[in-house]
Amino acid sequence: MTLAYDQLDQQGANYVPLSPVSFLHRTADIYPDETSLVYNTRSWSWSQTRERCIKIASSIAALGLGRNDTVSVFAHNTPEMFECHFAVPMAGAVLNTINTRLDADTVAYIIDHADSKLFVCDRGLLPVLIDALKIAKGQPKIVLIDDEFANEEEKTAVPTELDITTYEELLSSGNADFAWQLPADEWQALSLNYTSGTTGRPKGVVYHHRGSYLMSMGTIASWNIPNRPRYLYSVPMFHCNGWGHAWTMTAKAATVVCLRHFEPQSFFDLLEKHDITHFGGAPIVLNMLANAPASHQKKFSKTIDVMTAGAPPPAKVLQSMKGFGFDVMHVYGLTETYGHILQAAPQDQWESESEERQAELRSRQGVRFAMTEAVEVVNPDTFVPVPHDGETMGEIVIRGNTVMKGYLKNDDETAKAFKNGWFLSGDLAVIHPDGYIQIRDRAKDIIISGGENISSVEVENVLYKHNAVGEAAVVAMPDDKWGEVPCAFVELKPEASEISEDELIAFCADNMPRFKKPKKVVFGPLPKTATGKIQKTLLRDRIK
Amino acid sequence: MTLAYDQLDQQGANYVPLSPVSFLHRTADIYPDETSLVYNTRSWSWSQTRERCIKIASSIAALGLGRNDTVSVFAHNTPEMFECHFAVPMAGAVLNTINTRLDADTVAYIIDHADSKLFVCDRGLLPVLIDALKIAKGQPKIVLIDDEFANEEEKTAVPTELDITTYEELLSSGNADFAWQLPADEWQALSLNYTSGTTGRPKGVVYHHRGSYLMSMGTIASWNIPNRPRYLYSVPMFHCNGWGHAWTMTAKAATVVCLRHFEPQSFFDLLEKHDITHFGGAPIVLNMLANAPASHQKKFSKTIDVMTAGAPPPAKVLQSMKGFGFDVMHVYGLTETYGHILQAAPQDQWESESEERQAELRSRQGVRFAMTEAVEVVNPDTFVPVPHDGETMGEIVIRGNTVMKGYLKNDDETAKAFKNGWFLSGDLAVIHPDGYIQIRDRAKDIIISGGENISSVEVENVLYKHNAVGEAAVVAMPDDKWGEVPCAFVELKPEASEISEDELIAFCADNMPRFKKPKKVVFGPLPKTATGKIQKTLLRDRIK
Repeated sequence: MTLAYDQLDQQGANYVPLSPVSFLHRTADIYPDETSLVYNTRSWSWSQTRERCIKIASSIAALGLGRNDTVSVFAHNTPEMFECHFAVPMAGAVLNTINTRLDADTVAYIIDHADSKLFVCDRGLLPVLIDALKIAKGQPKIVLIDDEFANEEEKTAVPTELDITTYEELLSSGNADFAWQLPADEWQALSLNYTSGTTGRPKGVVYHHRGSYLMSMGTIASWNIPNRPRYLYSVPMFHCNGWGHAWTMTAKAATVVCLRHFEPQSFFDLLEKHDITHFGGAPIVLNMLANAPASHQKKFSKTIDVMTAGAPPPAKVLQSMKGFGFDVMHVYGLTETYGHILQAAPQDQWESESEERQAELRSRQGVRFAMTEAVEVVNPDTFVPVPHDGETMGEIVIRGNTVMKGYLKNDDETAKAFKNGWFLSGDLAVIHPDGYIQIRDRAKDIIISGGENISSVEVENVLYKHNAVGEAAVVAMPDDKWGEVPCAFVELKPEASEISEDELIAFCADNMPRFKKPKKVVFGPLPKTATGKIQKTLLRDRIK
Repeated sequence: MTLAYDQLDQQGANYVPLSPVSFLHRTADIYPDETSLVYNTRSWSWSQTRERCIKIASSIAALGLGRNDTVSVFAHNTPEMFECHFAVPMAGAVLNTINTRLDADTVAYIIDHADSKLFVCDRGLLPVLIDALKIAKGQPKIVLIDDEFANEEEKTAVPTELDITTYEELLSSGNADFAWQLPADEWQALSLNYTSGTTGRPKGVVYHHRGSYLMSMGTIASWNIPNRPRYLYSVPMFHCNGWGHAWTMTAKAATVVCLRHFEPQSFFDLLEKHDITHFGGAPIVLNMLANAPASHQKKFSKTIDVMTAGAPPPAKVLQSMKGFGFDVMHVYGLTETYGHILQAAPQDQWESESEERQAELRSRQGVRFAMTEAVEVVNPDTFVPVPHDGETMGEIVIRGNTVMKGYLKNDDETAKAFKNGWFLSGDLAVIHPDGYIQIRDRAKDIIISGGENISSVEVENVLYKHNAVGEAAVVAMPDDKWGEVPCAFVELKPEASEISEDELIAFCADNMPRFKKPKKVVFGPLPKTATGKIQKTLLRDRIK
């Protein structure tokens, strides 16, 4: 053993903390004049985008914010949202993007739980924020994204009593020479993403700089992203930081086309107008494109690479995609894994299979991305891997540098998520003889609706608040548009007076984000195990 | 500041040391039956290659070797050489590949300096090793690569008195279930590459696992390597670990075609036979392809991506390359930076330039690769960056995770190499207004001959050993075949008797690796500065 090998120390020149912030500087240095962002009639170059990010970072730092301070962003996929992915970490702070569909109560919870110091809010979402601030203990400083491309109904009056700075003011007061710095430690928190999980209150998933850097590099390697792609940003950036693509696409010097609201016709138009090469979308996006009127659809002669996650798209939808010229890569991941960690990487020999069999093979969750060290399907009790027989179910467990630091201020859930050197996904799956993983069921009761997680427990908790409800169980119900929607099974209290389905759904809508409300309520006794546990499997069978 | 962000610790599931060893396991898991290596009439699959590597690793470990133990490999680009890039680190040991053109004296020096415990040697190189072992203090265990495809003259008798194991014996005694492990620390030494540098004795450049992992990921991103390329391994793997491509190509599940000796006609045949998509080569390789008889050359309809480093190929050679269907990417790097860190990344607007101007633009050393944090050209005294005017010279300085740990057992040279948070390249360059770096001269007196570094100081030291030599200066002389060759300027001692050019060259050849001997000797007084320093610039001018 030659000890001298260990006597060569890290120093400034040979050890640099990994951070996605580095991507912006390299791309702006090499392609300063190429287009970075396009948003409706406006566009920016990479040198402009970098300058804007540095200025915003300087203004955030000037407010006294830095390492481990939370900056919340409640916004659509506008250029400001993209810029915050660099500006916030360049100030050393933590980026907390918030689901635009959340209600005031949940936003208030996040403000307090995240200890949010600065709150960047899109004009259209201001009413929700105003309500949230009435509930929250913390009162972060508000920065308004006054988007000129917002719809008229999104442009409600800004209450004069609020102390609001606009994003553009933050920008114009910024210092283009601000000495931004990489994190001192690549394990430093980069972003905070709240996920529904199984409990009623969302959990705060913390990402670090190292993980997001590696997420991007691994995605480039495994999705074969060429240099300077043209990317349409349809995945909400509040969702796992838009699958990390804000950083990944910057690393590849992409032109990123921003999108405030998704609508099939204009989406097809944007694909054509900007010669888009790549986009990502939840299955619902693909569904809506497939089901759009033929006059709104377009076919493309050059292949467009599409990444989709969540429930595998039905074969019929995949066929439509092929017709448009889309090459759909099915992936799997969780908020806790920075997004995608498995992909249905195609094999040469698949090409000789029937179209139907190909769709089947491609719809599996697949094999690990380049940055993922290990994914196994194990017996959740023994942690022994299941045989590769395509039949034996087990839980998907994951190990790699794109597994979260943990849940913020939630030691119990963090401890439960990690076991025996693995992160437990909570998803049940099989492994096929070719090593490809396919999900069979969810161990945790999550409903994925339009790409968003809905916790069945959260919906149940709201149902239980109603005086008439004795017991409630919520399960996923297949839905053509949303993929899945919550379906509630309710046993009324014996003494309760009659209540209608509509009444109960309305009650839920008033007490939670509207998109989480059950779409159907079935009244009647609930099937239970001997130990009194509600048998959700039987309820799911009933729906089918 | 939310301290809770810092209270989420690293654990097995969310922190994995970065190591290129991970690439092999992922690729063998996903593409077990695809071809990994091809060598003449033989080929292997990725599952076979992994099994062979694990077995070799187990045999190395069984010899009691592990972390920080050096395993030297003195071999051509055969499958065994490729496998050692995984097997040695899987045993936890350090891979020390040795330039096949070195002489016994230098090999002996390396054995002792590296404290080599195991020495894997190609059959054809055994005579050099036998001589080296007569000089070296250390006596590593010898493992013979008994390559069936060696030329007859390479198959000299193996002395019976030597205790030699063959590589195949190491393999057959190996354990396919060996519990290989990732390094405990990604900063752990992975490989040791000796470089000529400016001093007579080679310096041992130490790479770590983290650096080589990132080198591969950055190369994939910046060279746009698609999935499953077909790679012809013409860069010697003893040279910066073959530019790291053994690891990079494994990450992309390439088919790697091995090559024992380079020869233009068979090279063209291999490109065609194996439908090669990528290869790398020193300018001399491109020169020899360009100058091969037309009947040996081939043109390809599909583009072959070629990476070349060192002196920029002349416009005429680049034109030939284009004719063959080669897309040549010019890169720059040093052994100390794991190989390439700059690339002449093409810009859209270049396409409208004249062919001559394009060749000029493409021959510059360029801009940084994705894994390189920063490259600057600075005034070497003040470290102030030079203006981007294409005229002001400065020294190239580098910062990033692919900068070496340092020089093994050489604190002085390590300290000299790092300054002000930069690694000093020793190369003088300008930066053009578009940010592209172009080398103008070498601060250190290195002669790059056929892709290999020759230290002028080393050649001078040998010349000085001759009784007749009073003063000597060696500089690079342009050479059609080798790019550069050493040219010696010698001032004989006043009392010395006459000596011929041939005599002095022969003396050098007897006292150093033959490829380093001067190809020309010019006798006469040497030009000097007022302080007595030999003016090499004037000597270089004389050659031109």
